[in-house]
Amino acid sequence: LRTFTVQYDITVLEGESIGAKVEGICFEQSVEMPPDTIDIDIHDEIVGRILLCEKTGESRYRAEIEWPLLNTGPEITQFLNVLYGNISMKPGICITGLSWEKLAGVPSYRQSDSDQLFPGPAYGIPGIRERLGIPERPLSATALKPMGLTATELADICYRFALGGIDIIKDDHGLADQPYAPFRERVKACMEAMQRAADKTGRNSMYIPNITGDWPEMVERFEIARDHGAGGVMISPHLTGLWALAALAQRDDALPLAAHPAFSGSHILHAGSGFTKAFLYGELWRALGADLIIYPNAGGRFSYSREECLAINEAARRPMAGFRSSFPMPGGGMQRANLPEWVRAYGPDTVYLLGGSLYQHPEGIEAAAREISELLAG
Amino acid sequence: LRTFTVQYDITVLEGESIGAKVEGICFEQSVEMPPDTIDIDIHDEIVGRILLCEKTGESRYRAEIEWPLLNTGPEITQFLNVLYGNISMKPGICITGLSWEKLAGVPSYRQSDSDQLFPGPAYGIPGIRERLGIPERPLSATALKPMGLTATELADICYRFALGGIDIIKDDHGLADQPYAPFRERVKACMEAMQRAADKTGRNSMYIPNITGDWPEMVERFEIARDHGAGGVMISPHLTGLWALAALAQRDDALPLAAHPAFSGSHILHAGSGFTKAFLYGELWRALGADLIIYPNAGGRFSYSREECLAINEAARRPMAGFRSSFPMPGGGMQRANLPEWVRAYGPDTVYLLGGSLYQHPEGIEAAAREISELLAG
Repeated sequence: LRTFTVQYDITVLEGESIGAKVEGICFEQSVEMPPDTIDIDIHDEIVGRILLCEKTGESRYRAEIEWPLLNTGPEITQFLNVLYGNISMKPGICITGLSWEKLAGVPSYRQSDSDQLFPGPAYGIPGIRERLGIPERPLSATALKPMGLTATELADICYRFALGGIDIIKDDHGLADQPYAPFRERVKACMEAMQRAADKTGRNSMYIPNITGDWPEMVERFEIARDHGAGGVMISPHLTGLWALAALAQRDDALPLAAHPAFSGSHILHAGSGFTKAFLYGELWRALGADLIIYPNAGGRFSYSREECLAINEAARRPMAGFRSSFPMPGGGMQRANLPEWVRAYGPDTVYLLGGSLYQHPEGIEAAAREISELLAG
Repeated sequence: LRTFTVQYDITVLEGESIGAKVEGICFEQSVEMPPDTIDIDIHDEIVGRILLCEKTGESRYRAEIEWPLLNTGPEITQFLNVLYGNISMKPGICITGLSWEKLAGVPSYRQSDSDQLFPGPAYGIPGIRERLGIPERPLSATALKPMGLTATELADICYRFALGGIDIIKDDHGLADQPYAPFRERVKACMEAMQRAADKTGRNSMYIPNITGDWPEMVERFEIARDHGAGGVMISPHLTGLWALAALAQRDDALPLAAHPAFSGSHILHAGSGFTKAFLYGELWRALGADLIIYPNAGGRFSYSREECLAINEAARRPMAGFRSSFPMPGGGMQRANLPEWVRAYGPDTVYLLGGSLYQHPEGIEAAAREISELLAG
């Protein structure tokens, strides 16, 4: 019987006992019935099994539970239901890790017979470096904004960023299909701008439009992006459903896939509850197929610590069950002035996402882009 | 210019000022750029506008921000991005309400020209009562479980619940398409069992299979359920993507739609952050099209208070922007013994979902079902 193991950080609250709490997870996330109503063979085959439960601090425990893969079936939605469905509504339970090596190669029946439950990135760090022709140095990225500009205006910004040498130019995650810059028109205009810039510089940058939407719409937008030669696509998987990452990563015509953290915050904002940031962004998104992992950098508008960011980076890049590594793409809190310091901290296998500070540059965005590019070229 | 208004409960943390925090939301959820980089017409048309900000307690404020509907475009994913995309990663922000009357009738371009951004329930309380032929009394419901049983075994349980008079018999939300009880086989067997029971009792109950999956799979499961005459379908919208509710509710062949809270807990577990339970389950799910709103009852395995449950019920049922009312479907913490007390508290326009306690009945589940049915018949 194939199984996988989940690691939990458990906080015991007033009136709770650790034994009952961990056993409660074993039943809640499987049979969801009182133990006395369960037959012995169902119990042995279906209910989670406690492998480890050890005290790590005042009211804190580390637990490991082994789950039969049979319960998840061949699909991500039910996998996530076993991982964190009902216990998402219980306080003091945080998912910290998973035995990915037991999940690599498990088949899914989704799009085709060769599909896997967890595909990992289709490109990963080496594939994206190859597409860009940049074997070693750190990469730069920026976002087209603000909402409210027309497709032509956004394409003009795109052109100037590309002239200045930014490697990856993505849509702001708030650009969807609004009437002021409809998706198809925007992609067409931005790809033309990218081509004009490439003709001038002799260097390819990557434009990544945001295709977030409901699934039928996402497929349509994916195909528009592909047909216009876009370098990749971006989704906010917590808006689309996390399964969409794996579905996009396993297309025969898959493009590099960037994941944006919009709507994910509730899962990682509360210590001792939800997921650790390194698990959600670094491990789960990577296993689902994100090539580029966008997250809010320490020191920016969000309250992620430097240690948490380093842990996300490490999870995205370390050897893990044969999955390709993902590019961490921290954004926020980075300017021309402190970028060298971040590069020392995060290293070359990182995409440095700069936004507002490029738009604020007194000499304009092309000059801003050029400064960043020169800096990252070393 | 069409707009809508969102209400927030803001907690000011150490080092924050209320003015900067509320203004920060206006920019974060729209242009996502520093104010000094924004043209004045973008500012006036695109950035959120503070309508109200008043102190409600120590470090607590109630705020209202008006948003241009233009930013959301005609789709739920981007609507939720404006509502709670990036601010989901910031502490001390809780969504408590929305001006639904400004959103009723707004068109979506999704499945057909007549589609609306927020459709509300296709059936609602009156539609479900009509389908069941039960004009007034409170309804009973239960769940088929546990995981691990075969389709035939689950159908046998289904038969006995239906014989005993349970009105709504739904799949446990963990039943997906596992090899022990594949979806198609389970629906076929359960619908045959429902028919056999109806032939004997002369009374129709409703079987609601769980169709949660990725979208292509959900559509397939929906059609299997429809073709077998199922009374409704259930999804866990936080696993599928919330947009799936609106997509299913607007099908020409829509069936009563039950929403299950699996994977939603992070949004409602932390006071002062995320969404209030009444907003998420009672308002947002209802506006998206849930006919049946499943949530964990007070006094059960989850820590929802009686007041919170009453607030969910009220939100699901009160007049709201012309949407049909939704049936609250509290589950957990209810047994034969305390059911009359819950009926007094929640009233007749409620579906009382009993699970484990029916399976524990010493005389078997048919007897348990009969007791509940007699009790609710009054």
